[in-house]
Amino acid sequence: RRAHGTQAAKLGARAAYIVGCIGTSNLECGREFGIPVFGTVAHSWVQAFDDELAAFRANLDALPEAGVMLIDTYDTLEGARKAVLLGKRLKAVRLDSGDLIALSKKVRRILDKAGLSKTTIFLSGDLDEYRIDEILRKRTPADAFGVGTRMIVSIDAPVVNGVYKLVEVIRDGRVSGRVKLSADKVLYPGKKQVLRYSRDSIYSRDVVCSADERLRGAAHKLLKLVIRHGNRVREPEPLEAIRSRVKREVARLPRRLHRLDTVKPYPVEFSRELERRLEKEAASVRSR
Amino acid sequence: RRAHGTQAAKLGARAAYIVGCIGTSNLECGREFGIPVFGTVAHSWVQAFDDELAAFRANLDALPEAGVMLIDTYDTLEGARKAVLLGKRLKAVRLDSGDLIALSKKVRRILDKAGLSKTTIFLSGDLDEYRIDEILRKRTPADAFGVGTRMIVSIDAPVVNGVYKLVEVIRDGRVSGRVKLSADKVLYPGKKQVLRYSRDSIYSRDVVCSADERLRGAAHKLLKLVIRHGNRVREPEPLEAIRSRVKREVARLPRRLHRLDTVKPYPVEFSRELERRLEKEAASVRSR
Repeated sequence: RRAHGTQAAKLGARAAYIVGCIGTSNLECGREFGIPVFGTVAHSWVQAFDDELAAFRANLDALPEAGVMLIDTYDTLEGARKAVLLGKRLKAVRLDSGDLIALSKKVRRILDKAGLSKTTIFLSGDLDEYRIDEILRKRTPADAFGVGTRMIVSIDAPVVNGVYKLVEVIRDGRVSGRVKLSADKVLYPGKKQVLRYSRDSIYSRDVVCSADERLRGAAHKLLKLVIRHGNRVREPEPLEAIRSRVKREVARLPRRLHRLDTVKPYPVEFSRELERRLEKEAASVRSR
Repeated sequence: RRAHGTQAAKLGARAAYIVGCIGTSNLECGREFGIPVFGTVAHSWVQAFDDELAAFRANLDALPEAGVMLIDTYDTLEGARKAVLLGKRLKAVRLDSGDLIALSKKVRRILDKAGLSKTTIFLSGDLDEYRIDEILRKRTPADAFGVGTRMIVSIDAPVVNGVYKLVEVIRDGRVSGRVKLSADKVLYPGKKQVLRYSRDSIYSRDVVCSADERLRGAAHKLLKLVIRHGNRVREPEPLEAIRSRVKREVARLPRRLHRLDTVKPYPVEFSRELERRLEKEAASVRSR
């Protein structure tokens, strides 16, 4: 509900599934793409009953297999004490507010004391990768995380500043590169390819080069032709195939890029030939 | 193209028009809502020609009434010198990169020297309210601004953290308020009204109160019933009426709120009665 519209919510949830989330609470996304759907009740469900325990019991009656109770509507620890009265049918509890780290530890003790060591703790509430990292580093007994706002609007980087640019013109059979030389927006001429190099199966660097260049060393090409003269020339990849591929590819990134606090970025270079062609086109533009 | 999908782009452009922009470059938004559409060529248009001046001439031939030339593809000042060759038909020039303040001043001199004092300067390129304020404070000869990315994703506040909450339950004819007491998310019970007070036609403060409260002093009610039992009970307001209303309302805000660097926010208070009812409900929940 905090995405930039229903379309962004749906496509964002699909993207989140591709990059590793196990499901979505967006029902339309589940219906359209077949992505697993998860969800718990809202606080309004608990509030609709005069008594919190009555709300839990009604929840369990309605969805006996789910058994996830939202316990932070009034007082989280009190909520946990009421939830354990459901016994083994309590599969999980959800905490959505307050000091999640301290509360999780106390709730874990309440659950364990009641013999519910298999009941899991599900956390939500303005989570992002940094907060989850902190929660895990502090050895919080958390079993699953629900991430919403900060993922769907990518709050620290809400825009991809990508642009489409004209790089080549073919007129009367003659191919000529196009450049843009304005101070803050340099554009390299001609069709490109991106070569990705590996060392021991781990990716080491990418080189942006001209499409017709041959560089030394074993690399694989990242750019593939998808649309030709307005027609798709490659079948769309099934969602599960995309997801598996992303998982494999992420595993092949250098170790340091798996950390949140990495400072050395993945190296992406321009080929010498490309730099040479830019110089040539720039000189030609200047001489006009 | 940097909005969160086509739906967000369209609705965002509509919102921008409501709050004071004079139009949009989003053609679909123009078609659907009748919002005035403006736009200039892309850099690719200029690049598609072997010669910049030939691009300008073809642009003018295609759209003689528009007459806006994008002059920063290669060298802004050189572009300006070529554009003035179009004579009086040159209605405006657009700068989209580089030091907009310094370049505008130099371009203004080139235009004036060529007798084109009526030709205007249109600026674009990662603009936002702070950058435009700086440009204006430095007495830049800028006549119009094109704002894109930073408005459509609201880059400094990309999410409205609004929530829907259950505030009242009517069961067997008995109305009871609902509260939420978790540490970081307090919810006041019952249906609300928001009263807006004025002084000399300028808004002075809002008070959130219970819907049935009567407060002293002249105020007008901000909340109106729009949907009842799933049915709309109020006609949708025409877009131009919304836009005029917003303009009038903004003019009635305290002067300091018209500044970008205001520190004292507009006062929004809760009524004493509402605070009292929260206390009562909270006590009732705690006693269960």
